[in-house]
Amino acid sequence: MKRLIEKIAETKAPIVVGLDSLLDYIPQHIKEQAMAENENPFDAAAQAIITYNKAIIDAICDIVPAIKPQAAYYELYSWQGMKALYETIQYAESKGMVVITDGKRNDIGSTMTAYAAAHLGTTDVCGKTVEAFGADCLTVNGYLGSDGIKPLLGICNEKNKGIFVLVKTSNPSSGELQDQMIGEKSVYETMAGMCEGWGAETTNHYGYSAVGAVVGATYPAQLKEMREKAPHTFFLVPGYGAQGGGANDVKDAFDANGLGAIINNSRGILTAWKKAGTDGHDFAEQARKAALAMREDINSVIPEIKLPQ
Amino acid sequence: MKRLIEKIAETKAPIVVGLDSLLDYIPQHIKEQAMAENENPFDAAAQAIITYNKAIIDAICDIVPAIKPQAAYYELYSWQGMKALYETIQYAESKGMVVITDGKRNDIGSTMTAYAAAHLGTTDVCGKTVEAFGADCLTVNGYLGSDGIKPLLGICNEKNKGIFVLVKTSNPSSGELQDQMIGEKSVYETMAGMCEGWGAETTNHYGYSAVGAVVGATYPAQLKEMREKAPHTFFLVPGYGAQGGGANDVKDAFDANGLGAIINNSRGILTAWKKAGTDGHDFAEQARKAALAMREDINSVIPEIKLPQ
Repeated sequence: MKRLIEKIAETKAPIVVGLDSLLDYIPQHIKEQAMAENENPFDAAAQAIITYNKAIIDAICDIVPAIKPQAAYYELYSWQGMKALYETIQYAESKGMVVITDGKRNDIGSTMTAYAAAHLGTTDVCGKTVEAFGADCLTVNGYLGSDGIKPLLGICNEKNKGIFVLVKTSNPSSGELQDQMIGEKSVYETMAGMCEGWGAETTNHYGYSAVGAVVGATYPAQLKEMREKAPHTFFLVPGYGAQGGGANDVKDAFDANGLGAIINNSRGILTAWKKAGTDGHDFAEQARKAALAMREDINSVIPEIKLPQ
Repeated sequence: MKRLIEKIAETKAPIVVGLDSLLDYIPQHIKEQAMAENENPFDAAAQAIITYNKAIIDAICDIVPAIKPQAAYYELYSWQGMKALYETIQYAESKGMVVITDGKRNDIGSTMTAYAAAHLGTTDVCGKTVEAFGADCLTVNGYLGSDGIKPLLGICNEKNKGIFVLVKTSNPSSGELQDQMIGEKSVYETMAGMCEGWGAETTNHYGYSAVGAVVGATYPAQLKEMREKAPHTFFLVPGYGAQGGGANDVKDAFDANGLGAIINNSRGILTAWKKAGTDGHDFAEQARKAALAMREDINSVIPEIKLPQ
């Protein structure tokens, strides 16, 4: 979380580019070349994805602090897709970017230990210690309570990693369970309280713990409420752009230093070339332009970003 | 779900073997050979896992209806582990077993469409239609509400697949959120009610829908309560064996036909060779013995298994 906050302050960009590896987002010429060079469709898909992702990373790594690959879109292309995920993470790290793997993982304690090692830690294979995926942060679901979160806290402290727990998600039906009231508190507020509790067991980074929360841009009132009630919890905010959220919807997620939140944009950046009406040969340039426009948009409504003294 | 129920009736075994691919469970001679034949530790791990899993499947496929690979333990070995997951699923299917991938996946609708296609459906790659992982059932987390479940229901109906939604999990801290009261109902009961609602949109299989629920053996009172309150919801029951649940703890998960639930056992089957004190050369034989003993144990407390007329 410390590195993420410092990168945000350095780039003045509280934004993360969601690398959703849907082939539909990738220009035709990249896919055609990959299909020509690979017989197996998943090998071709993986090659197209990694070619595309590397170009996007090259185009944005100096102006955007982080990427957020969505695991589902890599699993969609089988183990070859997961190989593309691994290579994407390694490449982004080599360019100094912070990587948030969006996996929304959750399970009982022993199994979460495996997820924590897989995505944030290391794996021991017969005496050799190796990194399975090597991200910096992982999104998780707290439905199982503390057992499912505690195995992650140790890795957060030891290896300077972070997690983002689902609190109030951006989708239309998120309220079916999350808005239900448990006594005086909603389910999402209860979950945010649990995040503050878990966070207290981790290192403090400029006032924030290593336990962040996912709160959707599509629910600005809840975002404001949670910023007040969970002051040590850094927010990962999806829902800006394609899902309907704008800069004004997310402004209350930030603190007086312009920190406290990072806003995700996937489709708006990845398919900027489509919106520009090009054939996609300029997809990386269009992605950079869209990221710069988003940075300006967000900065226009939040306090100037600076690290607290 | 239909095929699962029929396989349970055919084998008289309402049990699923959890294929947790931890290297620690695999006998030394298999790991040594894999390490000798592969330079990359993850390639070696994947080879050991697939060798081990195939032998387990061969040893139990005529007496056990289903396997449940836990995704976390494959992700632990990077994309090579995911390749072992793919090969394990394909092998089990070739032996006629039902495969429940334990991924506890969850996300917004568009992303769940990707998870549904990845694990239960097919992927379109530039005009070619291919199967990414090819399981029959997937465990999912319903924290995001209907949007995150609906993309799965279509695939369940079209391709005869099933899902198991987390309701009351087996871990010690599951009550932190799941036992909280929303008005007159607990969170887990609310979730079970949502399962019944989602299930009503799927095909009926011997009285059960394609939407099952995960309810832990470690909470027998809740298991009994849920069996009464969610009569169309088939249960996947973890927590038997290593986590402390016994046959008497799970008996109320079953209906009058001895159906309605399938009990998972991972460590108890996979590490039976350790318990027997052998060097592991007989691991497959020991797994079969343990599965037979478990079948007898469960059958001794439930009504005789038969398909309803």
